[in-house]
Amino acid sequence: MKNYMQLFRGTAFSSKSPKEIHILKDHLFGINADGLIEKIIAPDDSEYQPLLDAYQGQSNFHQLAEGQYFLPGFVDLHVHAPQWAQSGTALDIPLHDWLNTYTFPLESKFSDLDFAKKVYDDLVSTLLANGTTTVLYFATVHKEASLLLAEICAQKGQRGLVGKVVMDDPEQNPEYYRDADTRAALADTEEFILAVRELAQTTKQGVYPVVTPRFIPSCTDESLKGLGDLAAKYDTYVQSHCSESDWAHGYVQDRFRKNDAFALHDFGLLRDKSVMAHCNFLDEPDADLFAETGTAIAHCPISNAYFANSVIPIAHFHAKGLEIGLGTDVSGGFSPSLFDNIRQAVISSRMLEDGVNASLPAQERGVPGSRITVHEAFYLATAGGGESLSLPIGRIEQNFVWDVQIIDTKLPSAKLPIFDEHEDLQDVFQKILYLVQPEHIREVWVQGEKVHSR
Amino acid sequence: MKNYMQLFRGTAFSSKSPKEIHILKDHLFGINADGLIEKIIAPDDSEYQPLLDAYQGQSNFHQLAEGQYFLPGFVDLHVHAPQWAQSGTALDIPLHDWLNTYTFPLESKFSDLDFAKKVYDDLVSTLLANGTTTVLYFATVHKEASLLLAEICAQKGQRGLVGKVVMDDPEQNPEYYRDADTRAALADTEEFILAVRELAQTTKQGVYPVVTPRFIPSCTDESLKGLGDLAAKYDTYVQSHCSESDWAHGYVQDRFRKNDAFALHDFGLLRDKSVMAHCNFLDEPDADLFAETGTAIAHCPISNAYFANSVIPIAHFHAKGLEIGLGTDVSGGFSPSLFDNIRQAVISSRMLEDGVNASLPAQERGVPGSRITVHEAFYLATAGGGESLSLPIGRIEQNFVWDVQIIDTKLPSAKLPIFDEHEDLQDVFQKILYLVQPEHIREVWVQGEKVHSR
Ligand SMILES: [Zn+2]
Ligand SMILES: [Zn+2]
Repeated sequence: MKNYMQLFRGTAFSSKSPKEIHILKDHLFGINADGLIEKIIAPDDSEYQPLLDAYQGQSNFHQLAEGQYFLPGFVDLHVHAPQWAQSGTALDIPLHDWLNTYTFPLESKFSDLDFAKKVYDDLVSTLLANGTTTVLYFATVHKEASLLLAEICAQKGQRGLVGKVVMDDPEQNPEYYRDADTRAALADTEEFILAVRELAQTTKQGVYPVVTPRFIPSCTDESLKGLGDLAAKYDTYVQSHCSESDWAHGYVQDRFRKNDAFALHDFGLLRDKSVMAHCNFLDEPDADLFAETGTAIAHCPISNAYFANSVIPIAHFHAKGLEIGLGTDVSGGFSPSLFDNIRQAVISSRMLEDGVNASLPAQERGVPGSRITVHEAFYLATAGGGESLSLPIGRIEQNFVWDVQIIDTKLPSAKLPIFDEHEDLQDVFQKILYLVQPEHIREVWVQGEKVHSR
Repeated sequence: MKNYMQLFRGTAFSSKSPKEIHILKDHLFGINADGLIEKIIAPDDSEYQPLLDAYQGQSNFHQLAEGQYFLPGFVDLHVHAPQWAQSGTALDIPLHDWLNTYTFPLESKFSDLDFAKKVYDDLVSTLLANGTTTVLYFATVHKEASLLLAEICAQKGQRGLVGKVVMDDPEQNPEYYRDADTRAALADTEEFILAVRELAQTTKQGVYPVVTPRFIPSCTDESLKGLGDLAAKYDTYVQSHCSESDWAHGYVQDRFRKNDAFALHDFGLLRDKSVMAHCNFLDEPDADLFAETGTAIAHCPISNAYFANSVIPIAHFHAKGLEIGLGTDVSGGFSPSLFDNIRQAVISSRMLEDGVNASLPAQERGVPGSRITVHEAFYLATAGGGESLSLPIGRIEQNFVWDVQIIDTKLPSAKLPIFDEHEDLQDVFQKILYLVQPEHIREVWVQGEKVHSR
């Protein structure tokens, strides 16, 4: 009989395809020392009973209670870590004021490592408590504090992909908060890449450096070019914002006479390991370029309602084969929860389909064919995020990592409305997606290690 | 010195106007035997210290801990109580299928009082745990089960306004789920009104019968007329659905050659105590008729994304002086939380303002001036709900009832992101509105009685 580091027993939900859920009812999950799912054993498999007999009662055997379920851990493709300190505030003002009055002053405080530690410790723990096991982070311009964020992820067991933010254009950024100059921006980025690669040596679940121009308007041509070169030199991840709003879209058109996608591509910033946030104003050639280069979209539905002036046509881009995941965009999005963003992704897509202005005739109001189902939104938060990052995460499948959240639907303080003992598991799954709160998430595991419990 | 039944000390947030919040920092709240706020005492008042000295240490003195705040209890203007059992499911199908495949079969099961008790007990407790102290409920066609819901509200301490649903048209409703005939529908409604009035005699926080035609398509002209007469005879509340979707709006136009609002008015169903759900397709004369008759709108932003084909122009209707409150519309809306609906009300209003279709030029995309702030959405969930029901609820003010929720922002398991000891209370308020989950709601009081704690 095979030896596993851990053996889990229970019912799991995992995407089979964007529109279909795979329900593994009462299966066994054998996890190896690397934290990978080595084998999944169905109840009718001949190995099942012998394995159960061998592991039951041992400390490395974990049996879900009735009403508990496994979901894959979530992959959050867009978080501004320092902005956690202002989450939920000042969302009633325009982007420019929001950046200059609130966000840049806040981010500048992360030169103070004590303050950074307080906020980053709390954020990483909060995201884990929300079931998020992998996160693509923007930190700040500060190299040290950005490295501290990577260290906190490493230590708390979260899979962190972290970027030191570059914003070097003295015309576009306040003096109190920007890179000293282009050379410093690139040198700090390179040192940051090396330091995180060093840290990764001792981090089981992985930690990764990310080349991170804030967005084109923050950066000089020289820094964009230099960052593209660094990404190629070290084969790193790249993240930025792309075609988010009317203003950002128009700014890049004015500067380069082309859309963000092509401008970023000119600087070597669209790569298979690139993830671009928002992308609401991609046109067809932009989207084709994303598909060709393997660039992924981080869809941030809550944030988009505040700052993106539109709803991104996810169903259309998905049908074109683009890689798409979900992002909370803390704090442009107020919620640290991808459950909340799954819900909003569905809602926003329906608003795009039906339109919003009741005084227009129905056939002129919206964009037919735009809605996505809750299954597709779940796919974005899990498997789609994994594909975007080219990592074996986001699915409960053989050779994927054991990144899971254990959901309790029968918590006495917050029981889900399941009144039928034999409720269809498809319905249970939908109730979980629509109704789970952080308190239902009883345990979170990353790469075979328990990183959160309550 | 004045004798109070209860004396509370802490910081409270309550709407001053739709756009402004009143912050009562470290005030005393004296509650009388009727559960009313008899007096609010500011720290600089000469009574403050003597009152503190007299009450401190007594069992009827309640001091909030640091990081805790009072909010008014929420007023939910639209809940389908039986549908709690299917909350979060089947939202990917059209309204007609949703009603016939899921909702009507489920509602028909409430002829079974044991099943009804199980679901209604859980729902009322869940809504209280979500900070909702007053609820306007649709029950089912069944008189007994509807009365049971009123009894459960009475017993659990929630202020319940409950309607036995009328759907008597044999052409429009399935045989297994409708009133036996028009006469039975009206007789059952009248008996239900009398029974709830009887129950109200012994219910401190109040319980009220509501005349409830499901919506015009469910009802014959005779039942609509008869229900209008009953509402006048007993001066009751009235609730229904009004101009919710393209389909419903068109149906009423076909049948009566007028919009829902005027059709309902012809039957005597628009009154000061009337609350109409959704109302997305009200035109200007409809809205004027609402204003004249004192009819209120129950805005259900989450549900509308699934079934209303549009976003209701709340800012416009508010500016016209209409009474508007919020509704969860369980289970057309999946969430039992008005916090979630506050968030969606803001988001939906911004989508109406900005529009959704990025391929249109910005100036053709949306409806300028449509956004509401989170303060206005909070107003809808509290003071606006109170005005809609013409009850002294939804505000923390003298002569209003003591219906409050106590929010803990420093809960160890789910601390809100407040890192500055001296954080501005306006920002704390916004963080509460955007980030609170049920676990932050530590106590709920209705009419001076504690009805929920954790
Ligand atoms: Zn961002
Ligand atoms: Zn309804």
